[in-house]
Amino acid sequence: MQEEISHLLERLIAAEDNEQKAIFEVAIEELESSELALLLESLPLHERFDRWQQVPDADQIDVLVAMRAEPRQTIFKSLSKDQLQALLTDLHAEDLIELAESLSEDAVATALQSMKNNQRRYYEVSTQYEDDQIGRYVDHELLILPRTANVKLALQKLKRSFPEYTDCIYLIQHKGIYVGTVPLQAIYQATPETLLIELCIEDPITISADNYLVDATEKMEHSGLMTLPVLGTNERLLGRLTLRLALEITRDSYESQLMATAGMDEDEDLFAPVFRSSTRRATWLGINLLTAFLASWAIGLYEATLQQVVALAVLMPVVASMGGIAGSQTLTLIVRGIALGQISKGNVLPLLLKEIKVGGLNGLLWALVIGCITALWFSSVGIGLVMAAAIVMNILAAAVSGVLIPIILDRFNIDPALSGSVILTTVTDVIGFVAFLGLGTAFLL
Amino acid sequence: MQEEISHLLERLIAAEDNEQKAIFEVAIEELESSELALLLESLPLHERFDRWQQVPDADQIDVLVAMRAEPRQTIFKSLSKDQLQALLTDLHAEDLIELAESLSEDAVATALQSMKNNQRRYYEVSTQYEDDQIGRYVDHELLILPRTANVKLALQKLKRSFPEYTDCIYLIQHKGIYVGTVPLQAIYQATPETLLIELCIEDPITISADNYLVDATEKMEHSGLMTLPVLGTNERLLGRLTLRLALEITRDSYESQLMATAGMDEDEDLFAPVFRSSTRRATWLGINLLTAFLASWAIGLYEATLQQVVALAVLMPVVASMGGIAGSQTLTLIVRGIALGQISKGNVLPLLLKEIKVGGLNGLLWALVIGCITALWFSSVGIGLVMAAAIVMNILAAAVSGVLIPIILDRFNIDPALSGSVILTTVTDVIGFVAFLGLGTAFLL
Repeated sequence: MQEEISHLLERLIAAEDNEQKAIFEVAIEELESSELALLLESLPLHERFDRWQQVPDADQIDVLVAMRAEPRQTIFKSLSKDQLQALLTDLHAEDLIELAESLSEDAVATALQSMKNNQRRYYEVSTQYEDDQIGRYVDHELLILPRTANVKLALQKLKRSFPEYTDCIYLIQHKGIYVGTVPLQAIYQATPETLLIELCIEDPITISADNYLVDATEKMEHSGLMTLPVLGTNERLLGRLTLRLALEITRDSYESQLMATAGMDEDEDLFAPVFRSSTRRATWLGINLLTAFLASWAIGLYEATLQQVVALAVLMPVVASMGGIAGSQTLTLIVRGIALGQISKGNVLPLLLKEIKVGGLNGLLWALVIGCITALWFSSVGIGLVMAAAIVMNILAAAVSGVLIPIILDRFNIDPALSGSVILTTVTDVIGFVAFLGLGTAFLL
Repeated sequence: MQEEISHLLERLIAAEDNEQKAIFEVAIEELESSELALLLESLPLHERFDRWQQVPDADQIDVLVAMRAEPRQTIFKSLSKDQLQALLTDLHAEDLIELAESLSEDAVATALQSMKNNQRRYYEVSTQYEDDQIGRYVDHELLILPRTANVKLALQKLKRSFPEYTDCIYLIQHKGIYVGTVPLQAIYQATPETLLIELCIEDPITISADNYLVDATEKMEHSGLMTLPVLGTNERLLGRLTLRLALEITRDSYESQLMATAGMDEDEDLFAPVFRSSTRRATWLGINLLTAFLASWAIGLYEATLQQVVALAVLMPVVASMGGIAGSQTLTLIVRGIALGQISKGNVLPLLLKEIKVGGLNGLLWALVIGCITALWFSSVGIGLVMAAAIVMNILAAAVSGVLIPIILDRFNIDPALSGSVILTTVTDVIGFVAFLGLGTAFLL
């Protein structure tokens, strides 16, 4: 957080009623919509509604667009039908695309009716693309001219409108087919009669509207340009992707990954209504419960042993947790590799060998340490040896699972960032308990 | 990954020797340096060295700069002293800043000797800033003119040089003090004799070189501009921040967070040398071991109980894991809130109350389910009741710890993304085991 905002935010959150109102008034003066959105998200629901009242009508849509889906929905729900209708009048296509996921179908239909014709068309084209395709989020504020236009015409156009992040003019021919990209720099340096087509950059980079978001943003980043044209079917120019949009998409995708590690959603509201938050998190707890019972079942196989050597019960968490941690290190490395496309059939074997060697070394090291500690703790060399052997086996199993589980999940198109760690800990728990208690049964009874 | 690259990468990794050489030749033709860096990182060490030989001299620095610190270091180590010296001749300041962390002090000194004077000065200024401050990574390729310059001079300058992402010219006065920002658009539309100072944007946004990286990138993103000037002490213009750089910094910071959840570093090489990788991961395993022994010690307090009611030993993983999962959900939400600056003294209490309510609801739900299952499994209502009570207590404890642990860590300037989950699971393990076995001791013996 920038210091000024962070300071403002801290004061806002700590303040009450009238004082908070005054601070938020200052915030509205000084901050951008996206920053106001962050402020509103940080407030408990009733304070959030109070402060929302202060947001000037003209900024409300921008603030809502910048908010996460869930906190935004809390605002929508607090509005009367008339207020909602007034708010949703004359929207831009990009804004409705963002807002639609938090709106009822009725509300979206009302919003569409009050839209300008060209915006409604943009909206209809955008919604033909899935929410992981770049076509859906295309920016329609771009400068377009026919392929026959000259520099004079371009200069006139530039005087009339200059959308944020403009660095070029796009040329199209009949039916809106993309012809070329003319950098502003070239336009400004040419004579008025020069045809724009002569100033087009060679081999222009374009993005296909059905590209996945990450692919499109990487292409944007690697291009060295500030904007890229996005083309639909038959090379029709749909809009553009800006570096700013690429940055937002990148941030969202990482946030999703981070939240997925705990089975949650990127849009989760800090102050989500309790019942809603509970039901959603319950699913993840339930899935996890099944895997925990699997581990219990594995332990249950050795009840007789546990009764005779109770030290084994005491030490179980150590075996399980060393396997879990070692496995999650490998898993995290592989999940990142998959996300970057750095893993494929050809390098699975060398990766597996490397991780097994790393696991072997760490297994031996910690087996020695843990074996000695437990042998001393329970005054039994046997327990120390069983423990050491179980640790080595479990860390090796963790290395193998850490490599293979995400690769297999990915092959079946299951997000390894979301489900990888649950499956991994199940495997390391079960293998760890069976190895430990099995060895105990064989050698300690 | 973009499909073309991803396809190329897959073929490259799967291929051997000569075939791989041919594929990489194509990659060099078609890809950007940052994409070549990704390819090289995906290869096991000996193949990586072989392919590196193919990278044209002119691209080598760009590829190395784009690589992560660790894989880059493997390349440096494979070079002879003469090769290294040739490679490090006549570097740009920004490149040496990136490369320095993988180089010996001697190598950096050699590189500095062969630098142009102005680049060496840039380097010296940059290294006055810490590696989490924006001043260190400033881009020096920007257009600067004295405050007295006119449009004619600006147009001449623009014809001579036009660095990537240029959208304005910066004006300075004596001693390099920043005066203002002139958008190219204004320059191109003005008459040749107009003074640039008259075209400056009002209230220009600037970044202070000692700003933290995240603060600077957020300011960049919210500004709606493509570049921002970075100012050092006494308002001296040091360089600029581009949206592209902001995107790279954002990506790096999220990657660090993701890797930190498993106690690893953003720069970790997929094919790090085994010994190196082992020793680094060993630290994290060791820290974790201490916490696991703490859990064992808690269990050890109830050895006598476990001996009599072995079912308790069987069920321990269920108690521990439900608490761990519930806690990590809360923790993840709070860690994100802290990273965005959305959490402060004022909202800790409402957050805590909300999470306790969510935990209470989920605790009751799953206590009922788990209580019934265990009562049936072990044909004992007593065990079912003890289990149910322990689950409720542990999920509530998890909610409280999930909120408080990251906030306390952050107060002491400890990264909650790195150490939060280890501490959290220790707390939930210990509380879970003590609650479960303590209740068992009280009611089942």
